[in-house]
Amino acid sequence: MVTLGDLATRFGVEIRGDPSIELRRVASLESARPGDLTFVAQPKYLARLPQCRASAVIVSPKFADRAPSHLALVLAADPYLLYAKAAQWLHPEPEVVPGVHPSAVVLGEVDPSCTIGPNAVVEAGARIGARTVIGAGSVIGANSSVGSDCRIAANVTIYPGCVIGARVRIHSGAVIGADGFGFAWDGEEERWVKIPQIGRVLIGDDVEIGANTSIDRGALEDTVIEDGVILDNQIQIGHNCHVGAYTAMAGCVGVGGSTRIGRRCRLGGQVGIAGHVEICDDVTIMAGSGVMKSITKPGVYGAGIPLQPYEEWRRNFAYLRHLDAMAERIRRLEKRLAELADED
Amino acid sequence: MVTLGDLATRFGVEIRGDPSIELRRVASLESARPGDLTFVAQPKYLARLPQCRASAVIVSPKFADRAPSHLALVLAADPYLLYAKAAQWLHPEPEVVPGVHPSAVVLGEVDPSCTIGPNAVVEAGARIGARTVIGAGSVIGANSSVGSDCRIAANVTIYPGCVIGARVRIHSGAVIGADGFGFAWDGEEERWVKIPQIGRVLIGDDVEIGANTSIDRGALEDTVIEDGVILDNQIQIGHNCHVGAYTAMAGCVGVGGSTRIGRRCRLGGQVGIAGHVEICDDVTIMAGSGVMKSITKPGVYGAGIPLQPYEEWRRNFAYLRHLDAMAERIRRLEKRLAELADED
Amino acid sequence: MVTLGDLATRFGVEIRGDPSIELRRVASLESARPGDLTFVAQPKYLARLPQCRASAVIVSPKFADRAPSHLALVLAADPYLLYAKAAQWLHPEPEVVPGVHPSAVVLGEVDPSCTIGPNAVVEAGARIGARTVIGAGSVIGANSSVGSDCRIAANVTIYPGCVIGARVRIHSGAVIGADGFGFAWDGEEERWVKIPQIGRVLIGDDVEIGANTSIDRGALEDTVIEDGVILDNQIQIGHNCHVGAYTAMAGCVGVGGSTRIGRRCRLGGQVGIAGHVEICDDVTIMAGSGVMKSITKPGVYGAGIPLQPYEEWRRNFAYLRHLDAMAERIRRLEKRLAELADED
Repeated sequence: MVTLGDLATRFGVEIRGDPSIELRRVASLESARPGDLTFVAQPKYLARLPQCRASAVIVSPKFADRAPSHLALVLAADPYLLYAKAAQWLHPEPEVVPGVHPSAVVLGEVDPSCTIGPNAVVEAGARIGARTVIGAGSVIGANSSVGSDCRIAANVTIYPGCVIGARVRIHSGAVIGADGFGFAWDGEEERWVKIPQIGRVLIGDDVEIGANTSIDRGALEDTVIEDGVILDNQIQIGHNCHVGAYTAMAGCVGVGGSTRIGRRCRLGGQVGIAGHVEICDDVTIMAGSGVMKSITKPGVYGAGIPLQPYEEWRRNFAYLRHLDAMAERIRRLEKRLAELADED
Repeated sequence: MVTLGDLATRFGVEIRGDPSIELRRVASLESARPGDLTFVAQPKYLARLPQCRASAVIVSPKFADRAPSHLALVLAADPYLLYAKAAQWLHPEPEVVPGVHPSAVVLGEVDPSCTIGPNAVVEAGARIGARTVIGAGSVIGANSSVGSDCRIAANVTIYPGCVIGARVRIHSGAVIGADGFGFAWDGEEERWVKIPQIGRVLIGDDVEIGANTSIDRGALEDTVIEDGVILDNQIQIGHNCHVGAYTAMAGCVGVGGSTRIGRRCRLGGQVGIAGHVEICDDVTIMAGSGVMKSITKPGVYGAGIPLQPYEEWRRNFAYLRHLDAMAERIRRLEKRLAELADED
Repeated sequence: MVTLGDLATRFGVEIRGDPSIELRRVASLESARPGDLTFVAQPKYLARLPQCRASAVIVSPKFADRAPSHLALVLAADPYLLYAKAAQWLHPEPEVVPGVHPSAVVLGEVDPSCTIGPNAVVEAGARIGARTVIGAGSVIGANSSVGSDCRIAANVTIYPGCVIGARVRIHSGAVIGADGFGFAWDGEEERWVKIPQIGRVLIGDDVEIGANTSIDRGALEDTVIEDGVILDNQIQIGHNCHVGAYTAMAGCVGVGGSTRIGRRCRLGGQVGIAGHVEICDDVTIMAGSGVMKSITKPGVYGAGIPLQPYEEWRRNFAYLRHLDAMAERIRRLEKRLAELADED
């Protein structure tokens, strides 16, 4: 248990209220009870504060005066960021006991401080860094390396020869380093000829990779995920891609092979990016958009169709197949109208 | 083996034909042979009945007179539903022998009637209900609970602290309870700060979860999947979502975090739903549509672009970037025409 | 190590340069060093040849004269195809040592030439063909069969009763044979009734299946993937589908149930195909397109919205909901204009 005063000291923030108030956990505005710390990230939620039962609320100094007097306040320019840091502090990772479960198969080199779960497999030549946890049933391929302080959840697969940095978190079902989708069409024999995928996957430090996400190994060069990238679930990253540091991708994004994405980009859910394109730094792409060409200018981009009641959609979208005809009719109208005006 | 008469008795339906006819399995209209039970769910398939070799056909009483006389009939107002029930009856689950395979690692509490497959892992504090089957290689996280009569296939992952109801079926590769995608951007240090995901996943009774589907745990509150929900493969459900009872989602749907979906909704394949929206009960959304706003009225909704031959698509879709210009030209034409008419 | 002369002999191609030049590996144009073989598949890359340090370059005879004289050449009508074959030759699969790892659980029948990885499970009645490799943690369901010379990566799941051909490669996280999404709605009890999925998955020879891809078993008939099909990652194939030989699907494609796709089709990333449609042979569908109806004519098809800067998109796409109104205004203009012209 910590106090409000401890929080102020640790994060160097101003508080309003009794510094001896005890804080046990973080909670949402609605569910918070005494002992809880909560936050208001957007002004629209200020209206809920009178009913709030939390022991303290993180709020922007701009809105501090609008908070009711029964609540202790923590003032932070970015309440959501302070909430994230405070939550990490109040809810530390569960402690793990170092050791290799007797059912695990360890043929590689594992630091004595590691935790290797039941039925996990560390293949020959693989190396696992200090304090890293490998979950039950996960397989670390031959000659791969996983850095220190990583959390590899259960049933993760890392193919041979991949390199994972420090403090990386990989969720269950994720597959790192499967073969890229590289085939040449043999027109004579009418069949696909597989191209060996001899590159690796290189993942930087502080990366998070979601459940059931796949990152393919390179064909000739390596697939690279730079430091601090965060990937949600069910994402597909093709071979030879390069994802710049601190880029974030929401769930179900698909990125074609050999595409280069800049730093600090943000891709919404189900975004699709074609292969062999380049996205510059600081690009945001709205959910569901398809990106077929390179983007050279930072900014926000979108595509996508507004949802409609089915009957309206059907009426409207019939015209989508005839936009060129509509445009042609407008051109003809403009011409006729000009002629008519001239005739007058 | 059962007879047509047994079927009539069990499901309380009328038959036309010899009650002693033996039924061994269900089959499609085309492939059915003697001993098979088949069905006609839509009138357009009635034309195929003369060639049908099944021993009996489930058909709506409305169309019974259009069936050829060589076929025994089972009359049901909803032939597809009766077929489902009859198929369950004729094709019961393969019997499973209770017991824990010696290669499994069981640290939690397992009912003696359970079947725990080879190399499965039940972590400490986890509890598995009566007659539940845990497939080979599956991992049930610490302090999770799985209800009675569940079928957890091979290589499923359930994270710690999740709660699964009774008669739930989870297919291989599914991941329940991975961390939600919660990060705060630290503008000063230019990096993402992870927000601990301390909620759980709560799954009701009679839920089916498809292969490689992911359901994230809540950030602060729980992610909830109510009774009778059916989820196809490759679906992503973000943290804090609430999915109402008997809602169905087809493959590859993605649902952003904190979204609330009502009861009896039906989402087509590859539908994407933004985070923080609400969909009321009884909403159907057509395949491929993106939902960016809340839906407050039951009904059928769609978006999406009709497929075209590539050359037509290219011509047409050039205008999509210029709809505002087209509208402006129409406005100008209307104005000019009104002026012209006035001049006359 | 092989020589340029060996390459010429093996593949029956013409070379220009010293046949004793040694080749160790394939590499990209940019990264190639002495000992490397590279290729130019498109004329636009010819400009990079003067800087190229490879020992030999595969190039089309048409462009051979544009290559600088310091480079040995390999002439091939289809440089990319020859590169694929040469890469296979220079980079053979790592040799595997036959044997069953002591931690594997083998209840089925395994050829003595197989390699069964740590903690893999071969259930009762399953059969594994000669020289096939089953990766760590993979589960081969009861009574399934896997042909000879297959490579089943780690953590793959094959359900009971499926049939896999020879030389098939399945990547980690893939799930073959999970239940199809078949349910009948019980309107009285307001719940879904599961339809037993009693079909199988049949996979031909020389098929490649990507990471985290799911192929469901048939409801009544079998789901069929013919010879030589290549599937990328995160793909969903519904029950009863039939995919024709040598068809290729890029990542994140979703195919609804009972759909029939012809031979040599090519589906771009994130394509969605509705259930119960038929796509004829030799159809190419552009990335991101939705296919709601059958396609009966070979060719290239597309749908999808061009990406725009967000503000432009917002302006433009407002009109998407009003295309029918725009068309009506054009009709009215045409009519008024005709009347005006008549009045003159």
